Amino acid sequence: MDNEITEAYITMPAGFKAAGVACGLKTDMGNSGPMDLLDLNMVETDVPAVVAGVYTKNLIKGHSLQRTIRVIETGTKVRALVVNSKNANACVGSKGYHDAVAVAEAAAKALGCPPDEVLTASTGTIGIRLDTSKVISAIPTLVSSLSTDAESAHRAEKAMMTTDTVPKEVSAKLTLSGGKEITIAGMAKGSGMICPNLGTMIVVFTTDAAISKELLQPMLVRAVTHTFNRVSVDGDTSCCDMVVVLANGASGADIAEDSDDLKIFEEALTSLSLDLSRMIASDGEGATKFIEVICREAKTAEDAKLVVTAVAKSPLVKTAVFGEDANWGRIITAAGYSGADFDPDKVNIRLAGLLVCKDGQATDYSEDEASELVKQHDIKIEIDLNQGEFEDRMFSCDFSYDYVKINGSYRT
Amino acid sequence: MDNEITEAYITMPAGFKAAGVACGLKTDMGNSGPMDLLDLNMVETDVPAVVAGVYTKNLIKGHSLQRTIRVIETGTKVRALVVNSKNANACVGSKGYHDAVAVAEAAAKALGCPPDEVLTASTGTIGIRLDTSKVISAIPTLVSSLSTDAESAHRAEKAMMTTDTVPKEVSAKLTLSGGKEITIAGMAKGSGMICPNLGTMIVVFTTDAAISKELLQPMLVRAVTHTFNRVSVDGDTSCCDMVVVLANGASGADIAEDSDDLKIFEEALTSLSLDLSRMIASDGEGATKFIEVICREAKTAEDAKLVVTAVAKSPLVKTAVFGEDANWGRIITAAGYSGADFDPDKVNIRLAGLLVCKDGQATDYSEDEASELVKQHDIKIEIDLNQGEFEDRMFSCDFSYDYVKINGSYRT
Repeated sequence: MDNEITEAYITMPAGFKAAGVACGLKTDMGNSGPMDLLDLNMVETDVPAVVAGVYTKNLIKGHSLQRTIRVIETGTKVRALVVNSKNANACVGSKGYHDAVAVAEAAAKALGCPPDEVLTASTGTIGIRLDTSKVISAIPTLVSSLSTDAESAHRAEKAMMTTDTVPKEVSAKLTLSGGKEITIAGMAKGSGMICPNLGTMIVVFTTDAAISKELLQPMLVRAVTHTFNRVSVDGDTSCCDMVVVLANGASGADIAEDSDDLKIFEEALTSLSLDLSRMIASDGEGATKFIEVICREAKTAEDAKLVVTAVAKSPLVKTAVFGEDANWGRIITAAGYSGADFDPDKVNIRLAGLLVCKDGQATDYSEDEASELVKQHDIKIEIDLNQGEFEDRMFSCDFSYDYVKINGSYRT
Repeated sequence: MDNEITEAYITMPAGFKAAGVACGLKTDMGNSGPMDLLDLNMVETDVPAVVAGVYTKNLIKGHSLQRTIRVIETGTKVRALVVNSKNANACVGSKGYHDAVAVAEAAAKALGCPPDEVLTASTGTIGIRLDTSKVISAIPTLVSSLSTDAESAHRAEKAMMTTDTVPKEVSAKLTLSGGKEITIAGMAKGSGMICPNLGTMIVVFTTDAAISKELLQPMLVRAVTHTFNRVSVDGDTSCCDMVVVLANGASGADIAEDSDDLKIFEEALTSLSLDLSRMIASDGEGATKFIEVICREAKTAEDAKLVVTAVAKSPLVKTAVFGEDANWGRIITAAGYSGADFDPDKVNIRLAGLLVCKDGQATDYSEDEASELVKQHDIKIEIDLNQGEFEDRMFSCDFSYDYVKINGSYRT
C-alpha cells in the first residue's frame, strides 16, 4: 500500500463524485457554522457500481436501511447513495419505507436512472417521521453540486456526521500485477449520536477497481468481522449501522478470482477498515481516551472474543480509564464474568505496556509508574490467558462526564 | 406476612447477635464520622445454624468467598459470619486463602468453636493483600461487642457498606400453622464500590426457623433467580457477590417438607429478597433514579430475560433516564439487539405508564406529558412483545455524572 497519500477523500477513485448540502433537517442552534448544518449527501458514479453491504444485526432496522438491503439483495449495480443525518427514519411504520422510496425516486429522477440504482441511508432520531419534503426539495441542488473535488467529498462526509468531532476519511492507492493502479477510499460517521439518539455507524467505501459481487461481498464480511464489528463505544448496536462498498471498475483494472491482486485488494480494504474503526472508537461520544483490548492465548476464538467484548464494554473499566486509574482488578473481573472458559491463575495482564498482573495476581509494579502510563491517550489492555492459541481484539473508548452529558441531554 | 414491623435489623430472629467495629482498614478521609470507619462485622448465633449460600458466577472469586464456599459445601452448621470491607481479598494468590483462614481461626478462637463454623467474606479493592493483622487484632473487641440490640445490628450493616448511601435492612415475622412465630431478617450491601473498585453485593439473612439444608438451599436459589440476579447497576458482576441464609432453629418452629409452612417461608424469603433487590438498585452508585424494566408476552422465558437484561444494562437507556428524556427509541433499540426473537412490529412500550410506542412505532403521545412523567424517581419501563406468554423483570438505576465521578476516581 502506498503510504505517500496524506489527504484522503471519497472521490479519489476514478468516476466518483460527491456532494453535501444543508436541506434543513439540522437546525441552527445559535453557534453553528455553515458546515455544521450540512445534513444530506450523495456519492455518485457515472458507471454503475457493483455493491456489497454489511448491516446491523439489530432486529429493529431503519426504513432507509431496510430499503437499501432489499436493493442490494437484488444484485443490481448502483449509481448513487443518498444519506441524510438528524433523522434515522426508523420505527415510524410502513410510512417510513415509503419515505425512503420517495427519496430514492427523487434522486433517481435527478440522476436519470431507475430508483433501484439509488441506495438510501438515514441516521438520527428514531420514532419521528422524516420530513421528506425538505430532502426532496434539496435533491436537485445536491445533484447539481456533485463534483470530484476534495472539498465536495469533505462536505459529503460532514453531512453525515452527527456528534462526531473529526471527519474520518481514508484512502489507499494500489499497484496491481501488470502495473495497473486502483484506488480505494472510505469515509465513516462514528458512534456519535445525533440529537443525541442513536449511535449509528455508516461507512462508505468507493473503489475504481472492477470486482464481482461474488468476490466483494464475502471479502467485506471478512474485513468487517475484526474491524467494525470490534468497535464498542457503549455496547449499544444501532438500527442503522451499515458498511457499503461501491466498485465501479473505472480504473479498467480487474480483480480476478484466486489472483494475487485479490489478496492485495482484500488486505487494503481490511487495513482501511481497521483505520476507520480506530478513528470511530477514538472519536466515541465524550471520549478522552482510545482503548485497545487484546486477548491472547485463549482456548477458543469464542473465548477470546468474549473476553475482549466484556472488558471493552465494562462501564467500570471505561470509567477507570477516564479517571486514569490503573485498575486492573476491574479488567480481570470483567474477563471473569465474560463467559469465557479459562483458569484465572494463569492470567497475565499488561496495562499500557506494564505487567500489572501475573498468574492471576498483582505483580510488584510501581503504582507511580502505572499512574504515569495511564495518562497517555491511547491505552492498550493486553490479557494473556496462557492456555491456548486464539486471539482477538476490540476497540473502545472511555466513559466520561461528557458521555453522560451528551446522552442525558434532551433530544430536541 | 406481618407488616406491623417498621424497624428491621439482622438480630431480630431469636439467638442471633451482631457487632460492627472499626479495625483500621477504612481510613479517615477528613470528613468521616465514627460510623463511616466501621469496616468489620460479625453475625453470630449460639445455636449453630444451617446455612445455604448462592455466590457469584464470576470465574474470579475472592479468597474469603472461596473459603466460605468450601465450608458451606461440607454441610457443616455455622456459628458466625465475619465480613470486612475496604479490601476484597481477591487476586493475591494462595496467600489470600491463608489470610481468610487466619481470620476464621482468630474468630473461632474468640468464639470457642472450630474454624469451620466461621464463614468469611470480604469486599473492596482487589489485587492488594488484606492486612490481616488489623482484622485479627480487632476480633476480640468484635466478639465482646456482640449483642442482640438494634444498634449493634445497624453497626454490623454499616461495617460492610461501601459507597452505599443508605442501610438496607428488612425483616418479616411469620405465624406458622400451630401458631408458632418465626422471624426472618436480612441485610445487604449494594452494588456500590469501595474505594471504588468493585461492585459487590453481600446479603445476609438470619432466621430462627428450623429448616434443613436440603430444603433451604434450593429455596434460596429460587428466591435469588428473580430478585438479586435481576439487579444491574452497571452490568459488571463482582468476584465477591454472596447471599447466605443462616437458620438456627431457635424459635423451636420446624419448617417441614411439603408443608404449608414451607410455602409461607419461601414466599417471605422471596419477598424480602425482592425488597432488598429494589433497595440495592435504588442505591446504585451515583443513582438518581430507580428503574424497573418489565418484558411481557415473550415467546420464551429466555427471550424475556434477554430483553430486560439488554434494556436494563444499556448505557444509552440509563443516561436518557438520568437526563429525564422520554427516549423510547433507545429502549426498542436495546430490545432489538438483545438477541431475543420477536417481531418489532408487534411491540408496545410504556414509559412511566405512558404508551409511547404501539406496534413498533410512535404513538401520538404528548412530549410534554412524557417529560413530566420521567421526572419521577421510580421509572417503570414496560415492553410488551405481544407474541407469547413469558415475562421477566429487572431492576436498575440511571447513569449519572456521579457514577462516572465515583468510578473514575483513583482507588486510594
